[in-house]
Amino acid sequence: MSDADGQLHSGVSATVPVALGDRSYDIIIGRDIVDSAGAEIARRLPGARIAIVTDATVADLHLTTLIDSLDAAGVKHVQIVIKPGEGSKSFATLESVVDSLLEARMERSDAVLAFGGGVVGDLAGFASGIVLRGIHLIQIPTTLLAQVDSSVGGKTGVNTARGKNLVGVFHQPDLVLADAGILDSLPARIFNAGYAEVAKYGLIRDADFFQWLESNWRAVAAGWPEREKAIAIACKGKADIVSEDEREQGRRALLNLGHTFGHALEAVTGYSDRLLHGEAVSIGVVLAFEFSFKLGLCPLEDRRRVEAHFTEVGLPTRIRDIAGDLPDAATLMHHIAHDKKVSQGKLTFILTNGIGDAFIARDIPGDKVEAFLEEQLAK
Amino acid sequence: MSDADGQLHSGVSATVPVALGDRSYDIIIGRDIVDSAGAEIARRLPGARIAIVTDATVADLHLTTLIDSLDAAGVKHVQIVIKPGEGSKSFATLESVVDSLLEARMERSDAVLAFGGGVVGDLAGFASGIVLRGIHLIQIPTTLLAQVDSSVGGKTGVNTARGKNLVGVFHQPDLVLADAGILDSLPARIFNAGYAEVAKYGLIRDADFFQWLESNWRAVAAGWPEREKAIAIACKGKADIVSEDEREQGRRALLNLGHTFGHALEAVTGYSDRLLHGEAVSIGVVLAFEFSFKLGLCPLEDRRRVEAHFTEVGLPTRIRDIAGDLPDAATLMHHIAHDKKVSQGKLTFILTNGIGDAFIARDIPGDKVEAFLEEQLAK
Ligand SMILES: NC(=O)c1ccc[n+]([C@@H]2O[C@H](COP(=O)([O-])OP(=O)(O)OC[C@H]3O[C@@H](n4cnc5c(N)ncnc54)[C@H](O)[C@@H]3O)[C@@H](O)[C@H]2O)c1
Ligand SMILES: NC(=O)c1ccc[n+]([C@@H]2O[C@H](COP(=O)([O-])OP(=O)(O)OC[C@H]3O[C@@H](n4cnc5c(N)ncnc54)[C@H](O)[C@@H]3O)[C@@H](O)[C@H]2O)c1
Ligand SMILES: [Zn+2]
Ligand SMILES: [Zn+2]
Repeated sequence: MSDADGQLHSGVSATVPVALGDRSYDIIIGRDIVDSAGAEIARRLPGARIAIVTDATVADLHLTTLIDSLDAAGVKHVQIVIKPGEGSKSFATLESVVDSLLEARMERSDAVLAFGGGVVGDLAGFASGIVLRGIHLIQIPTTLLAQVDSSVGGKTGVNTARGKNLVGVFHQPDLVLADAGILDSLPARIFNAGYAEVAKYGLIRDADFFQWLESNWRAVAAGWPEREKAIAIACKGKADIVSEDEREQGRRALLNLGHTFGHALEAVTGYSDRLLHGEAVSIGVVLAFEFSFKLGLCPLEDRRRVEAHFTEVGLPTRIRDIAGDLPDAATLMHHIAHDKKVSQGKLTFILTNGIGDAFIARDIPGDKVEAFLEEQLAK
Repeated sequence: MSDADGQLHSGVSATVPVALGDRSYDIIIGRDIVDSAGAEIARRLPGARIAIVTDATVADLHLTTLIDSLDAAGVKHVQIVIKPGEGSKSFATLESVVDSLLEARMERSDAVLAFGGGVVGDLAGFASGIVLRGIHLIQIPTTLLAQVDSSVGGKTGVNTARGKNLVGVFHQPDLVLADAGILDSLPARIFNAGYAEVAKYGLIRDADFFQWLESNWRAVAAGWPEREKAIAIACKGKADIVSEDEREQGRRALLNLGHTFGHALEAVTGYSDRLLHGEAVSIGVVLAFEFSFKLGLCPLEDRRRVEAHFTEVGLPTRIRDIAGDLPDAATLMHHIAHDKKVSQGKLTFILTNGIGDAFIARDIPGDKVEAFLEEQLAK
């Protein structure tokens, strides 16, 4: 919090507005800003009671800091702790969180505070969207992925036996606090997985940002002020797209760059620690560039830069980088064709004309994709 | 369908638009219009696949008619049949309906068709609001209550151990088809329960409608063309209020006339067949008029007319009309104070200055309500 502890750059470093009419809100980015969360919440939602939803790992590491801050600001709160991991994004945990919220007698003017990674954010966000048909939501994301992706844009949800994220609501938060310092406790692998999503924004439509990341990624990883800068640019990238297309009817699909291939890889590896979501995105993005290159859309140079950067950062970039047995092309296709982005039977892919120039391609023939995957798997 | 079968008034008799910006839709009211549901749906949602959600009772009586109509119009469909009764408005049934929708590979351009009473409408509506974060919804309500109340306005939800309707989403339908003829198969008691909600709209802000009902209720019950007229006026009453205040932040609370007392009575009778929702509303409305009269707000004459009309129709109007043991005032107060309309500790009631002139009264002191209930129970 202060210069004395060596954090020369503590405090708010950027505020990114998300423009969504009467559902607009701010993403506040900085270092050690969880310390002032209580004051910020008291100012924005005076009188609201807060139900903190968090997972056991984040609770152990950071809950005291958050609670101290709420107490200091006189904000009343309860806490609901769930098990860490993707398994908590289930109907069963949703029901139990909803029950806890009702038991705590939350009212429409109160707020859920999602304090954790994307799992906590998606689950608590969904719960806040359906309890009393919608109460306030504050996101304090604690993973890089959650800060630049899942906490922004209002998508919430759980998984079912039929697939990931197929059930949920759009429910925008009232405030997002992204504390760069809280990421210091993240295992490197989880940090890196989130980094793939950061770089994705550069690849979609900000070539300068990608170039900046190529030079500055080490400072981002080390937690220097470049980290806040990267988070802010990534959040702005997502916020702009979400503002244009809140409910994913058009442009918002661009955010799925690398995700169609990525989701299929996650599915065949059982959504397990074998392959984290961001790692799947890393491989998926490289595949999307390769596929675009094969289709004559993207220069070879750009495909090479993307792969080189992800490799340097420490991310997997090829299907063969996944430990264990590899799926065959038919199995991957099976998952791709069942992906929820399939619209009336046709395949939609995010392709690219090069770094910073992604676009939505509808009507991609399935056999072209399958042939491409076979080739990739043979490598 | 034709003059030949004696239904001189078959066909569409009114279309009530619900004005909600880009979520606007029509309520089409008429007799035997389920026969043309397929054509109407094909016209409004071309290419959409339809997942019919219905309960076993409605399926037995009317599903063939609906399916024939869909088939005739070339509309593809699947069906999901749930158990009849309030018990189906649960997280467990929600999850199973959602699973069935995913299993049927519904896409965002497809639609759920809720075919049943308020239970089916609330449950299927909720499911359609969360599958793929929202797909289309068509309501074909088959009870009077569902036609004039639950199918209009976009409130959906399920019950939990903590209370009724505390979890759900606002999800507007694309189309509501209210078929007056389908109500012919309703048991009289269930028809009457819905009638209480019809009369409610007159009592809230349409004294002329209430007066018309006093003269014409027998024709409404008999299924003469007056039934469609009553449904249309009631739907318009709800549509107007919902358009002004979609998310119940203000005026929409007027629709809760009789419901605060009513919900408490439903709670103490265990939401059972001992007291149907509409019956609880009937008693609750009479209590609201009586309470308003005691507070010097409503003329005695109006309170008397309301009670006389509900009695004539065959509805219960007094707490003592409920079969079995009666609760005490403290127990009722306990439920009233936990009602979800409690805002930051204060009691909100819908009171009235007379027939057609209801208003929202905030800050009603709990002890006054309790004293009133004690008096009522002593009668
Ligand atoms: N809603 C959206 O728009 C959206 C977008 C992208 C991803 N997602 C979802 O996000 C989820 C993945 O999010 P995630 O990667 O944050 O996973 P996660 O929430 O499971 O977090 C990863 C792990 O890090 C731990 N952790 C969290 N913060 C920590 C900290 N500061 N220090 C140490 N450990 C910490 C967690 O306990 C967990 O074990 C997936 O379910 C995915 O579907 C949602
Ligand atoms: N969403 C809203 O705004 C709203 C408003 C009011 C009430 N509700 C909800 O509506 C529900 C009550 O609705 P309901 O009274 O329609 O109950 P319901 O759906 O349980 O239907 C009552 C009974 O009638 C049967 N039935 C339905 N149509 C029939 C027909 N045409 N012929 C013969 N039998 C038929 C059903 O099988 C059921 O047994 C409650 O859960 C209540 O909370 C919701
Ligand atoms: Zn992602
Ligand atoms: Zn009602």
